[in-house]
Amino acid sequence: MKAVRFSTFGQPLKVVEVVEEPDAELKAGEARLEVLATPINPSDVLTLTGQYGQLPKLPAVPGNEGVGRVVEVKDSTAVRVGDLVFLPLGAGTWRTHVVTPADGLMPVPPGTDVQQASMMFINPPTADILLRDFVTLQPGEWVLQNAGNSAVGRYVISLAKLAGYKTVSVVRREELAPELTALGADVVLVDSDKLPEQVRAATGGAKVRLALDAVGGDGTMRLGDSLAPGGMVVNYGVMSGKGPKLSAAATIFKDITLRGFWLVLWMKRTPRDAQRAVFGRLAKLMAEGQLKTPVEGTFPLENIQDALARAMEGGRAGKVLLTPNGKV
Amino acid sequence: MKAVRFSTFGQPLKVVEVVEEPDAELKAGEARLEVLATPINPSDVLTLTGQYGQLPKLPAVPGNEGVGRVVEVKDSTAVRVGDLVFLPLGAGTWRTHVVTPADGLMPVPPGTDVQQASMMFINPPTADILLRDFVTLQPGEWVLQNAGNSAVGRYVISLAKLAGYKTVSVVRREELAPELTALGADVVLVDSDKLPEQVRAATGGAKVRLALDAVGGDGTMRLGDSLAPGGMVVNYGVMSGKGPKLSAAATIFKDITLRGFWLVLWMKRTPRDAQRAVFGRLAKLMAEGQLKTPVEGTFPLENIQDALARAMEGGRAGKVLLTPNGKV
Repeated sequence: MKAVRFSTFGQPLKVVEVVEEPDAELKAGEARLEVLATPINPSDVLTLTGQYGQLPKLPAVPGNEGVGRVVEVKDSTAVRVGDLVFLPLGAGTWRTHVVTPADGLMPVPPGTDVQQASMMFINPPTADILLRDFVTLQPGEWVLQNAGNSAVGRYVISLAKLAGYKTVSVVRREELAPELTALGADVVLVDSDKLPEQVRAATGGAKVRLALDAVGGDGTMRLGDSLAPGGMVVNYGVMSGKGPKLSAAATIFKDITLRGFWLVLWMKRTPRDAQRAVFGRLAKLMAEGQLKTPVEGTFPLENIQDALARAMEGGRAGKVLLTPNGKV
Repeated sequence: MKAVRFSTFGQPLKVVEVVEEPDAELKAGEARLEVLATPINPSDVLTLTGQYGQLPKLPAVPGNEGVGRVVEVKDSTAVRVGDLVFLPLGAGTWRTHVVTPADGLMPVPPGTDVQQASMMFINPPTADILLRDFVTLQPGEWVLQNAGNSAVGRYVISLAKLAGYKTVSVVRREELAPELTALGADVVLVDSDKLPEQVRAATGGAKVRLALDAVGGDGTMRLGDSLAPGGMVVNYGVMSGKGPKLSAAATIFKDITLRGFWLVLWMKRTPRDAQRAVFGRLAKLMAEGQLKTPVEGTFPLENIQDALARAMEGGRAGKVLLTPNGKV
């Protein structure tokens, strides 16, 4: 079996290498999974550079989610050879094969697109929790977000639609608007200093209470200045490379709160049953085709440098996937 | 009677003038107060420049708190001539006399220093609410603040001491440390990029959950980076002129929350009885000499430009007071 490995933190293209690993013998209760698809998420890139909130002991195999097929099981009836399952979260998934306890493996619901399913565990729950856990919105209420064209941004648009919330999605490029509108976005705006007035105009002066921020810096501030008094900005990414900030007018005079969200902390403090309920609900929506994000391209493990270069570029059309055992 | 008046927003020294006003006849139930002392607060300066969160209709008389003596009463037994009372909050207090309903006037507790009492209604409740309403601290816990030498900063030190909390106060000038230590500060640190490590060292690695920020910009960020996971920064001022910001490491990876505080909003949403309970408790502490802030100087109304210039300078030793009817 082969794996992507890195032994120091640094420029992602420079620190990764593809290595041969010995085929481990299965112990009782274990399954061997052939990895079909595993994405490159922003958190993977930040792990390679050493900037993520938790870092592995090195050397390590990157990758945190994906879909695999069971190719071998030892002394377990939990899964059968041929089953499609979600890879265990955080398993170091950028490899051809994963060996893992068979118990607790979650099956991919029948009919689910394998590429879509490989992106199930990180971005969709992030979008779902951002929409549900910070402000209790009522159907018909507006939610504001930037990075509207990101994977999380698109899931937010879809999940908000399903919940009956209306969305204002802020993007950097005007040409993204038709695609997001087709996905269900109510309003798409290009980011600028005029954002507060534009939000007011687009929502008919609605009291917008929740904003989701993946940009940081002035991007956060423009969201904060667009909210109604008492509103909340939840920061879950910093695509600008800058920490989130608010205007004093927002914090002091308008009682705007800034909070942060990190799926890792959510998983630490949320009971396993509650987590599975969230994942199960989202997997069902995905199987029904109601949650979808575009794929920019698929790459074999050997082309990991090309894959990373593409994943780190702006202006992509979607997510970059690794398909270590050939196209899916 | 005379009053300070401004008819446009702008540079404070340029927009204020001292004008004669006709002596109003008292109506039944009204009292005439001779203004003894009224401070220049940062919020007054921001009102003059037009940058405050609520602005008066112009022309207006600035000033929001102070102490007066009753010099005339009509058809009321609520107060008597000679009584020392707190000026009604937000009355436009930079004047020689205030006419106001006698009912509801709050007496200055006997033995209270008049200068100290004139600063009772804005900074002490701000410090008190910042310490009590955002994070429920236990005795022995640490609270972190910047602007440690400001009026609010000093009240925070005193009130924290009374409640059994320990304080780390961040200042810009090292030479302030002995004075704040004498006031009861546990630790005084000079602000720098090393603040998080210095806080950790000074508190023995204590989990600091609350930070109070009157600086904004990078000052806010350094507080946020000094807190334990799950902690909160409350921003109540922006002496740096910059909005508050946090690092992404703080919001996302450490679940640090940023909130704002404005006394005006607190008063709008807090029932009058609860407000009076807070003011009463603080007035008692002030009468006992347990709440004190230094006075930089006192000025007659005629010298309002000099008074404002002093109030707007850095490196002051204390608050600037107007004493429209002579020294107190």
